[in-house]
Amino acid sequence: MKLPMFYVDDVIRRALAEDINYIDVSTAYVIDEDAVSEAYFIAKAPGVLCGLDVALRVFEMTDPTFKATVCKHDGDRIEKGDPIAEFSGRTAALLGCERTALNLLQHMSGVATATARAVALTEGSKTTIAETRKTLPGLRALQKYAVVCGGGRNHRYNLSDAAMLKDNHIDAGGGIAKTVALLRERAGHTVKIEVETRNMDEVREAVEAGADIIMLDNMTTEQMREAVEFIGDSALTEASGNITDERIREISAIGVDIISIGALTHSVTAMDISMRIKL
Amino acid sequence: MKLPMFYVDDVIRRALAEDINYIDVSTAYVIDEDAVSEAYFIAKAPGVLCGLDVALRVFEMTDPTFKATVCKHDGDRIEKGDPIAEFSGRTAALLGCERTALNLLQHMSGVATATARAVALTEGSKTTIAETRKTLPGLRALQKYAVVCGGGRNHRYNLSDAAMLKDNHIDAGGGIAKTVALLRERAGHTVKIEVETRNMDEVREAVEAGADIIMLDNMTTEQMREAVEFIGDSALTEASGNITDERIREISAIGVDIISIGALTHSVTAMDISMRIKL
Amino acid sequence: MKLPMFYVDDVIRRALAEDINYIDVSTAYVIDEDAVSEAYFIAKAPGVLCGLDVALRVFEMTDPTFKATVCKHDGDRIEKGDPIAEFSGRTAALLGCERTALNLLQHMSGVATATARAVALTEGSKTTIAETRKTLPGLRALQKYAVVCGGGRNHRYNLSDAAMLKDNHIDAGGGIAKTVALLRERAGHTVKIEVETRNMDEVREAVEAGADIIMLDNMTTEQMREAVEFIGDSALTEASGNITDERIREISAIGVDIISIGALTHSVTAMDISMRIKL
Amino acid sequence: MKLPMFYVDDVIRRALAEDINYIDVSTAYVIDEDAVSEAYFIAKAPGVLCGLDVALRVFEMTDPTFKATVCKHDGDRIEKGDPIAEFSGRTAALLGCERTALNLLQHMSGVATATARAVALTEGSKTTIAETRKTLPGLRALQKYAVVCGGGRNHRYNLSDAAMLKDNHIDAGGGIAKTVALLRERAGHTVKIEVETRNMDEVREAVEAGADIIMLDNMTTEQMREAVEFIGDSALTEASGNITDERIREISAIGVDIISIGALTHSVTAMDISMRIKL
Amino acid sequence: MKLPMFYVDDVIRRALAEDINYIDVSTAYVIDEDAVSEAYFIAKAPGVLCGLDVALRVFEMTDPTFKATVCKHDGDRIEKGDPIAEFSGRTAALLGCERTALNLLQHMSGVATATARAVALTEGSKTTIAETRKTLPGLRALQKYAVVCGGGRNHRYNLSDAAMLKDNHIDAGGGIAKTVALLRERAGHTVKIEVETRNMDEVREAVEAGADIIMLDNMTTEQMREAVEFIGDSALTEASGNITDERIREISAIGVDIISIGALTHSVTAMDISMRIKL
Amino acid sequence: MKLPMFYVDDVIRRALAEDINYIDVSTAYVIDEDAVSEAYFIAKAPGVLCGLDVALRVFEMTDPTFKATVCKHDGDRIEKGDPIAEFSGRTAALLGCERTALNLLQHMSGVATATARAVALTEGSKTTIAETRKTLPGLRALQKYAVVCGGGRNHRYNLSDAAMLKDNHIDAGGGIAKTVALLRERAGHTVKIEVETRNMDEVREAVEAGADIIMLDNMTTEQMREAVEFIGDSALTEASGNITDERIREISAIGVDIISIGALTHSVTAMDISMRIKL
Repeated sequence: MKLPMFYVDDVIRRALAEDINYIDVSTAYVIDEDAVSEAYFIAKAPGVLCGLDVALRVFEMTDPTFKATVCKHDGDRIEKGDPIAEFSGRTAALLGCERTALNLLQHMSGVATATARAVALTEGSKTTIAETRKTLPGLRALQKYAVVCGGGRNHRYNLSDAAMLKDNHIDAGGGIAKTVALLRERAGHTVKIEVETRNMDEVREAVEAGADIIMLDNMTTEQMREAVEFIGDSALTEASGNITDERIREISAIGVDIISIGALTHSVTAMDISMRIKL
Repeated sequence: MKLPMFYVDDVIRRALAEDINYIDVSTAYVIDEDAVSEAYFIAKAPGVLCGLDVALRVFEMTDPTFKATVCKHDGDRIEKGDPIAEFSGRTAALLGCERTALNLLQHMSGVATATARAVALTEGSKTTIAETRKTLPGLRALQKYAVVCGGGRNHRYNLSDAAMLKDNHIDAGGGIAKTVALLRERAGHTVKIEVETRNMDEVREAVEAGADIIMLDNMTTEQMREAVEFIGDSALTEASGNITDERIREISAIGVDIISIGALTHSVTAMDISMRIKL
Repeated sequence: MKLPMFYVDDVIRRALAEDINYIDVSTAYVIDEDAVSEAYFIAKAPGVLCGLDVALRVFEMTDPTFKATVCKHDGDRIEKGDPIAEFSGRTAALLGCERTALNLLQHMSGVATATARAVALTEGSKTTIAETRKTLPGLRALQKYAVVCGGGRNHRYNLSDAAMLKDNHIDAGGGIAKTVALLRERAGHTVKIEVETRNMDEVREAVEAGADIIMLDNMTTEQMREAVEFIGDSALTEASGNITDERIREISAIGVDIISIGALTHSVTAMDISMRIKL
Repeated sequence: MKLPMFYVDDVIRRALAEDINYIDVSTAYVIDEDAVSEAYFIAKAPGVLCGLDVALRVFEMTDPTFKATVCKHDGDRIEKGDPIAEFSGRTAALLGCERTALNLLQHMSGVATATARAVALTEGSKTTIAETRKTLPGLRALQKYAVVCGGGRNHRYNLSDAAMLKDNHIDAGGGIAKTVALLRERAGHTVKIEVETRNMDEVREAVEAGADIIMLDNMTTEQMREAVEFIGDSALTEASGNITDERIREISAIGVDIISIGALTHSVTAMDISMRIKL
Repeated sequence: MKLPMFYVDDVIRRALAEDINYIDVSTAYVIDEDAVSEAYFIAKAPGVLCGLDVALRVFEMTDPTFKATVCKHDGDRIEKGDPIAEFSGRTAALLGCERTALNLLQHMSGVATATARAVALTEGSKTTIAETRKTLPGLRALQKYAVVCGGGRNHRYNLSDAAMLKDNHIDAGGGIAKTVALLRERAGHTVKIEVETRNMDEVREAVEAGADIIMLDNMTTEQMREAVEFIGDSALTEASGNITDERIREISAIGVDIISIGALTHSVTAMDISMRIKL
Repeated sequence: MKLPMFYVDDVIRRALAEDINYIDVSTAYVIDEDAVSEAYFIAKAPGVLCGLDVALRVFEMTDPTFKATVCKHDGDRIEKGDPIAEFSGRTAALLGCERTALNLLQHMSGVATATARAVALTEGSKTTIAETRKTLPGLRALQKYAVVCGGGRNHRYNLSDAAMLKDNHIDAGGGIAKTVALLRERAGHTVKIEVETRNMDEVREAVEAGADIIMLDNMTTEQMREAVEFIGDSALTEASGNITDERIREISAIGVDIISIGALTHSVTAMDISMRIKL
């Protein structure tokens, strides 16, 4: 999997406009325009690498002479001190793009690392980890890609590609059965229908309605166990709400199909990666 | 302080394109197009509110009938359970914009809350808290604004508006004195010059060179104390690197002018805020 | 269902830039800037209306004084001579925006009309009509919306939201079973998997692999009948390829779930609608 | 003639965003990222080729390793079974861009083919075929270029570059003579003035007014003959309205200079062209 | 004539992004957000007003409470001290938008004023003044509009809407006659053909070739007189190159149809207009 | 110093869209698509070169075969007749991009030349020349860069990166002392504070308030002398308002630090540079 270039370039352009504006004043008057340097990315903490192509593309878009050799790839587990990539280019471009490249690389690696951590907690189970639509505005594709690099699987991308029926929809639609039926009749045939449930009554209704996915929202582990057993193979099960490490272990043991975690993308801790320039 | 509307609208347009695409499939076939509802934002955790205008603007840009009454304002401290704003509009628009609005509101409030927390640790000192350029690509202005709402002050916006001389610049420029002199001569007269120092020798050179701001980078508290005393009024002092809560207290007690913290913007924990719709 | 305003405005802006450039030279020097006129849209041929909100929005974005009363709505069947909407505004704006508004209205109504025609041919069956990804670049959302207005249902929007496994994918993945299994394991859980089949062997493999949707590609009606019977409820069936009117009748009689027709969007006949201005 | 690259790239970027979004899910998890394939475009029906450079550019913008050898060029007449271009590149890129490339190629070839068909009907006359402003929003330049590839000539591009006086303008301007005079005095000197006429009285007025082009709108063949004779060399004549094949032959025989046909661009039948991938 | 709103808004958005970035730091911390003020534009020098709608739109796009009363209109001659428009709005918005509004207003009025000055020199003749394609990148429509406000007429907008054959084209096309004939046959029928000539031989060839417009490029006044007489009514004549005030008088006396002046748009002197705020 | 490529490309794309639209009609039908030519830029007047990289990039973005050899560099003084750069590429691309490239090159060189002229008048003094925010909308970065190439230094880029307190701010803030103090406390620590003064009383207040820069606005030379002496090293001094050549000499002799001149960017005289094509 590779993010499409037209998308990446667009994100980078916006990021560079924000960070460079028209001139890197510290560099423009100090660094010889023709000076060339070597540099490298190095991990300052362990984690899962993500965004390397994106980060290198920042330099490439600014400096046609830029050349890189990668040591690690997106999805690789890296340890503190690991060299990630070595590259060379115009010194002024290296200095001017450093922050933009690192902001992208550290954020994406942060998402991948958190995902991998959650995935590890499900070991031995069939449960997979997914992000939610609680992403940072303008960065959704980067974050979704990072979740995959961390071993997770993506939830729906947007409101068009899958249906998620919450209490408001169900109330307006006249109950779970009617609302699901309505969507089955009118929404596109590639659209899966997920129903949010909060108790066994709703779970039963969702199964009867033929939901593709049943979300078990903010249930206790015990409730979830009952629901998962009841649902069996008739729908995918997704656990959501107040997902702590402890609960990931418990819930995955029950056999839930998916645990979706908003914090993977809405509360990201950047991974510590440095860039060193050898003048 | 208010973020300019042309900027906010642009961010929102991008966010809506990402989240809605062409249709909210769960809503389009279930909710009556003419249905109107009331809704409100409510705090699920304590913190500092930020991004309310931005969040409400999401609905306004989608639904010309949208109307809101605000209970709290950006910068206000809020407690769990506090109502934040009440509003009404087309039900379909409320449902379709909910996630985009909350993603913005929760992120911005997260930045403001973390900033306020750091500011509180400086109490009794003259120290102020600042963010860095370690922002999330495409969201810099929102994050800078949130830092202000949290009681912090903004560092430079981009590479054009202030100079920060790091080891690479100084090596290329022939030492601190020469590099600062070069910039004083050539960079614009509104550009402040900050010099990154790692030890007392560099601090002394920076003072002699007439730096406007001296960054004390990854120094021990003891080193910082010595540096701050030496520098006195000849430059502003900025502490940076490995800034824990404990160290904010220590460093502010010394009299450092600014503590800059990358994590305020690169590692944000979203604040928990909900939207409830009354059909 | 309503197309989101941020999307519509963006399409219109591009269309106006293309058609007006900086001045409507025929109008600018002839029509008094303050002159106001009434105008209306009238059907010149029968069909299904689509794009009325979009067409009226063209004037609205250009002329703040523009006011409209609609007689018909998107999805309404209209006859030759039917008034569609009456409106008033600055004469110069009415003249300058007429072509852009009509181009959108006629195209979208053309798609809706063709869809309705195909839907009518399925009467008495459970079959629904869908478009494909063979849309006109930059106009996909408008066309998808028009298909819905014509009584059809949308196929996947893009390559991200559902999987369609063709011979190339299946060859690379090591057969239908392995490829479907691979995607089930790694693609997001909201992603439906459709398999393209050309004969009964492939149909059997697809059923065994657990495909969500099975495309019957360029099969004879007889082959389709056999396939549909075999598949039963284990998957949705989609007929595609060389779909003539005659065949829509035949195939829908068999009980295929979906007939997808590229021509609905790639070979559109504009519906004849006029705008009349009363100076 | 070549469409400018900045324009083409912009159209493609929009088309790819629409069709790929962030990932081609069928390909991303199945096709080896480093896999390379060969592929070709082949005609499935006869027609006039148009859009080959544009279609190949889609791959080029996505895959730096893409290489193509063209067998045919824009404007060439092609027969069913003709190979059009052979190319190679990353398999994932070939699969992911196939639809976008074909959508452009088939549409543009459709326009060129329809134009060539109309042009053929004028054989032996001096009449040329032109499109109108009834183009598909966002695709005007592609369509205009396709008309030229089909042997037609372009009408005005937009409302700025030539004047077309219709009844509304003429009423507001105080008659044909006064309105033309007004424009001659005030519009730019490179702007040609065309007057729409519906009968011989208007034709006479238009000639006396010194119109550059006189449109014979919805006239009978007999009326057109009279008008063309009367007008002689004093203005170009353009026939428009209800243009069937039969009438193209009749009207061109009369000696009308231009026949403009809205359907060339508003009601396009895509040309059938396939892409085959050899894994 | 009015510039289209979608165009104006786009220019303003870019200008505001450039000038305000994310905050007007002088205002944000000093001016009460709810404060409201009155302000006005006043002429500091005589000239022809242009860009008032555009300038007021800057405030309108930033401040929904903004209200204005105009005293003068685009195209009006104004004297030093004349009030131009009075308005009120949020003080912070008035201060933050002042420079952007004035930059647009002063530039556009500068173009209009220079045009009016040139037009005045042609008094008593039939000659009109036109600008060229030597415009400032991104500002062409604003400048063209200003030329009209100053009493001039617009030359072609871009390379698509009229042909201008220079020596390079003529050499490649095999002489004036052949090149004009080639274009007559292939370029759109609304495209006027202008031929650049440098001596009487070329003038004669251009007339014989049936050029619509003949440019007399860098000729002496005497040469122009001979050319104009020879050309008579067979083509429009356009004088260009080294156009001083003195020469405008001379050339217009000869009866040249158009004098085109690059400096009207490439070397603009801003008109002095001030904005005063009453707090 | 080099303008960032993402910025330059964006400006060029907009300029080409404006000037070429979809076809260069004079070239498309006359010049053989495969024809290749050589061309060069030549100075028609003396001045300081600026924008050469930008101008050459215009061709590069349009024609992948374009190659250039530069004879002069941005910032070089050039004389009439000096060759500036020689290049080769597709003839059609050279012709189609000529005007866009020259419009940028002539404007930027015009700004640089005017700046150099002002700088020359300060010879022997410590005074530097700066532009203001009176720039042409959309071209600010190009103009700022040109000022540097002409030997000037840049003033603040936008309203965010430095504070400038005018009478309105000071009145609202409660006088110079209070307003400066307010900003010192709340604006970012990299933000310099400039105070506009009109007489010695204000100068004294500004010094006491600790302003970083004191603008001497529309003062007589005598007043400026007194102010500069009084201010000494306590702040930078900036002279502004009615800056003639004569006054630049006088004011620089006094020892003012900066003279800022709006006309450098708001009233630019394009430098005369030609492009010659050898077919």
